[in-house]
Amino acid sequence: MKRRAGLGLWCLAAAGTALAIGNSNREKPPTTAQVMESATESDWRQPDPANTLYMELAAGRVIIELAPRFAPQHVANIKQLVAEKFFDGLAVARVQDNFVAQWGDADKSRPTESALRKLPDENAAAFGKGTGFIKLPDPDGYARETGWLDGFPVGVERKPSGQVWIAHCYGVLGVGRDNWPDTGSGAELYVVIGQAPRQLDRNVVTLGRVLRGIELLSSLPRGTGALGFYEQPEQRAPIKSIRLASEVPEAERTALEVLRTDTPLFAKYVESRRNRRDDWYVVPADHVDVCNVSIPVREVPKK
Amino acid sequence: MKRRAGLGLWCLAAAGTALAIGNSNREKPPTTAQVMESATESDWRQPDPANTLYMELAAGRVIIELAPRFAPQHVANIKQLVAEKFFDGLAVARVQDNFVAQWGDADKSRPTESALRKLPDENAAAFGKGTGFIKLPDPDGYARETGWLDGFPVGVERKPSGQVWIAHCYGVLGVGRDNWPDTGSGAELYVVIGQAPRQLDRNVVTLGRVLRGIELLSSLPRGTGALGFYEQPEQRAPIKSIRLASEVPEAERTALEVLRTDTPLFAKYVESRRNRRDDWYVVPADHVDVCNVSIPVREVPKK
Repeated sequence: MKRRAGLGLWCLAAAGTALAIGNSNREKPPTTAQVMESATESDWRQPDPANTLYMELAAGRVIIELAPRFAPQHVANIKQLVAEKFFDGLAVARVQDNFVAQWGDADKSRPTESALRKLPDENAAAFGKGTGFIKLPDPDGYARETGWLDGFPVGVERKPSGQVWIAHCYGVLGVGRDNWPDTGSGAELYVVIGQAPRQLDRNVVTLGRVLRGIELLSSLPRGTGALGFYEQPEQRAPIKSIRLASEVPEAERTALEVLRTDTPLFAKYVESRRNRRDDWYVVPADHVDVCNVSIPVREVPKK
Repeated sequence: MKRRAGLGLWCLAAAGTALAIGNSNREKPPTTAQVMESATESDWRQPDPANTLYMELAAGRVIIELAPRFAPQHVANIKQLVAEKFFDGLAVARVQDNFVAQWGDADKSRPTESALRKLPDENAAAFGKGTGFIKLPDPDGYARETGWLDGFPVGVERKPSGQVWIAHCYGVLGVGRDNWPDTGSGAELYVVIGQAPRQLDRNVVTLGRVLRGIELLSSLPRGTGALGFYEQPEQRAPIKSIRLASEVPEAERTALEVLRTDTPLFAKYVESRRNRRDDWYVVPADHVDVCNVSIPVREVPKK
């Protein structure tokens, strides 16, 4: 880990001398709150309703943004399943602590054509010039490079594979599967609810992330069976429905905006996460993991 | 990220040729399950009951191992608070999604001498020769080195500070504090329930980890107030009591054993987490983050 020249003074300050020394003669970089206060309308984007899922649970709505670039055939099949109301009446059947919450047809009780569809391996997308990748300057242990693409946290390997994939960060959506070469149809889906299980990267199809309501999944009781599956069907959390936002009447939609990741403001935001400048912090890390950069989401008045 | 020479074959195999090629002429390394099957009694240790806390919630018992090496005065004060039954009748007052669950005297309603005690900054312990550090070979973005000490996941900086500290991994216990130079007395404590917030390392005193029952904290409803505090006192999860295991009658104790981190077996275990060899995995990561290595804990028959 590289440390800035200034950190010695910070450490000294932390050890007892005047805390102001470290930054006394330069302007203090903005805190995260200050960066966010300076955001303008153009720093936010509206997720495409045709790629946004509403999962309705008894406790409320979980909103998920799909990322078709990374797994187009899997995204298309999930939309097909949703159009067929496949998930309605199914349930969250697996909640494994510090790992994933998983829902869908755990019992394989609905062997529809869409649910049984065999799909190609879409564990990563092609990476090339003009892909629009925003690189995080910090090193990563699991990928050659990390950063953001289409608003999602990604890993990149330019050579030899030329691949980019959504990294398994908190809240990321993946496709449950059995042993490879099965890649899953989307009839079972999971989201990460713990320490980023990056060892899953490129072993599973990732194709979205939760924008709102992940706490409705992460606070469910943990399953006590193997892999966190509930042992009794009645312990499961029923899914009332999953719909595309575009299929829901406008009056019933949730108007969300997501902070763009391809702006100068986002670069400032990331820097404010790399080195926390709030008064609370004594030692700035001069580093951030891509999975430690939560991408802000806000609800806005309907237009 | 360094990749093994053999990985090209793995990738090729993943792309369609026979999966067996990659390892056809060498013995396959053991899976995690195989490593654990080969563990003997001496690979396990019994945590010291005098450094083990039982937090009794309505939903069950959370068991926490304290780490006196890292913050001796804070550990001593927490034991003093426990001896005074300070926490009994207080509550888990803050549950912030993907961050921490925090308990203790959120309202500062019990201004006892122990609760108000000013303690020195114990954010890290001294690191030197003979410290017994078990190094993880993989690089880390937040610390110069990571690994394990006394069975806890740690970060290390040999120079210039000569420090070792418990890294903010899932389940790690820290001491709530206000702005520095306050270091907290232990009257408010938290555990990590999300992506490892490593930016907190050396900004807060860390001094233990949950051995069992973290799901009783991580599955609590999230607080909807600022920082995940519950907005209504009745939303809090009451603490019946916190006791040292050594103060609990033997018949009421939970007999746990923790996998030792200073054994050849643990090195094999870590390798099995660096490169998953289960049939499910296609691409081994050849890397693991210290916070992705969960340290096994088991319950054993009482002796």
